[in-house]
Amino acid sequence: MSNIMVGKDLSEQIEDEVKQFAKQCIIRPSVAVIDIGENPDNKRFIKAHEKACNRVGIYLRHYEYDIETSELTIINKIKELNNDDYVNGIMIVLPIPEKYNEKRLINTIINSKDVDGLTDINVGRLMSGRKSITPCSVLGIMELLKSYNVELEGKDVVIVGKGKLVGRPLINVLLNEGATVSVCHSKTNDLKKYTSSADIVISATGVKNLITADMIKDGAVVVDVGITFEKDKIYGDVDFDKVSKKASLITPIVGGVGPVTIAMFLKNTILCYNNNKK
Amino acid sequence: MSNIMVGKDLSEQIEDEVKQFAKQCIIRPSVAVIDIGENPDNKRFIKAHEKACNRVGIYLRHYEYDIETSELTIINKIKELNNDDYVNGIMIVLPIPEKYNEKRLINTIINSKDVDGLTDINVGRLMSGRKSITPCSVLGIMELLKSYNVELEGKDVVIVGKGKLVGRPLINVLLNEGATVSVCHSKTNDLKKYTSSADIVISATGVKNLITADMIKDGAVVVDVGITFEKDKIYGDVDFDKVSKKASLITPIVGGVGPVTIAMFLKNTILCYNNNKK
Repeated sequence: MSNIMVGKDLSEQIEDEVKQFAKQCIIRPSVAVIDIGENPDNKRFIKAHEKACNRVGIYLRHYEYDIETSELTIINKIKELNNDDYVNGIMIVLPIPEKYNEKRLINTIINSKDVDGLTDINVGRLMSGRKSITPCSVLGIMELLKSYNVELEGKDVVIVGKGKLVGRPLINVLLNEGATVSVCHSKTNDLKKYTSSADIVISATGVKNLITADMIKDGAVVVDVGITFEKDKIYGDVDFDKVSKKASLITPIVGGVGPVTIAMFLKNTILCYNNNKK
Repeated sequence: MSNIMVGKDLSEQIEDEVKQFAKQCIIRPSVAVIDIGENPDNKRFIKAHEKACNRVGIYLRHYEYDIETSELTIINKIKELNNDDYVNGIMIVLPIPEKYNEKRLINTIINSKDVDGLTDINVGRLMSGRKSITPCSVLGIMELLKSYNVELEGKDVVIVGKGKLVGRPLINVLLNEGATVSVCHSKTNDLKKYTSSADIVISATGVKNLITADMIKDGAVVVDVGITFEKDKIYGDVDFDKVSKKASLITPIVGGVGPVTIAMFLKNTILCYNNNKK
C-alpha cells in the first residue's frame, strides 16, 4: 500500500458538500479576494482558488490593485465589502507589498467575513479555544491527517516554521488535540535533534529540501506545506524521494495539503455565509 | 555566587518606577478586581496584589461576589467599570466557579482596561506581534530572565503546562525572542526526553515536585511558576533542593517569579492608565 497522503479524494468530498450547499442558496455564496501588487505566487494562488470556486458554485470577486494604490483606497474597499450583503467572505492574499500595513488591512475585515481567520479577534479566539474561523492552511493539514487516521494525542509533533499563516496557529490547534508540540525555525540550533525523534514533522518554511532523510525517524508522518518555485519547477521543504522511503505517511510535493487547503477555503466561505445570515 | 534568581530587587525597582509615576497623577491610578466565589488561593492572590497596590499608590477596588450572584450582575458591573473614568484596569481573578462563562466575562472587559491581557483581541494581538497588553505572569518570567541576562535566541526552551495564563501566551513571546520552544503537558509521553536536553525549563503546572534533578541537564536555567498549597506549606513544580544543585540558575519556590508578576501587574495598570488618557 502506498504511504502517500493525497488530498484529492478528501478535497473532492469537501467540494461536493460545499457544492450541495451552494445549490440550495437563493443568492450564490460569494467571496472577495484582495490582490495587491504583482507577486506571481499570489496570482497562481488566486487562479487555483478561482477554479475551485467555479467548480462548486461560489462567486469569487477578484479585486486587483497595483502598487501605486493608496492604503486608504484599499481600506475603504474593505469597509464597503464588510457592509455588502452579497459578499460573504473577504481574503487579502499574502504577502502584500511592504509599503502597506498588513495588520491594519487584515483587521479592517469584519470578523464574521474573515474567511482566512487572521484578524486579531479570530486569532485570539482560536488560542482560547472559542468558536472562531481557523486559517485554511491549518484546517487543510488537520483534515488531511484526520482522513488518514493519524493519532495526535500524546504524539511528539515538530513544526518547522513559525509564520502566522501556518506555524503559529497550528501550535494551538495541535495542543488542543493533546499533541506535544515543538516549534523550530531559522534560529534553531540543531533542527535534526528535534525532527529525528518526532512522530510527526510538519514543515512550512519555503526552504527547498530542508528536511532530508537522515533527519526523520523510521515510520514518522511527514507533512510538507512549503513550496518553492524555481524555473517553473516546484520544490517542497521535504526531500520527498528519500524521505518517503522512511516515512510511514508523507504528503507529495503537489496534491497533498494544497487541494485540501483550497477546499477548506470553500468551506470557510460557507461558514462565513452562515455567519452573515443572522 | 548564588544561582538563585530572586525577584525582590527587580520587583522593588519596578514598584519604585510605578510609585514615581503614580505620585505625579492628579487622579490616583485605580484597578478593579473581580473576585467570584470562595477560592482561598484567589483570596491570597488578591491580598498580595492589594498590598502591592498600597505600597505604590494604586487604588485597588475589590468587588466580591458569592456563588449565588447571577452572571448578568457581574457582566453589568464590568460594563459599568468599562465606562468609569476613575477605573483604569479590570481583572477577573481566575479560576472562577464553573457555573460562569469565563470567556464571556473576560471578553466583556474593554481591551484598553484588560490589565491581565486575556481578552481575545489582546491575545490575538500578542500572537501577531502587535502592541497589546501581555499577561502579567508572562511579563514576570520574561523580566526576571532578562534581569539575569539569560539569552533566549537559539536556545532550546521547554514549557511544561499549556494553560492560557502562562503556557500558551509564553510560547509566542519566546518565539518572538528567537527561542526554539517545546510545549509539554499532562498528555506528553516522555517529559524527561524534553526537559533533559533543554537549556531553559519553565514549569507552570501546579503539580508538586514534578521536575526532579534527573530530568534537568547540568547548567540549565529552571523557572518555577507552579504553586501548590498543602496544609499551609507551599510547594513548587520543581524539586528545588536537588534541582538547584544542577541548574546554573533557578527560581526559589517563593520570591522568584511571583513578586515580579505582581510588579508587572502594577506596571500594566499604569499602561492601562495611559491607554485611557487618550
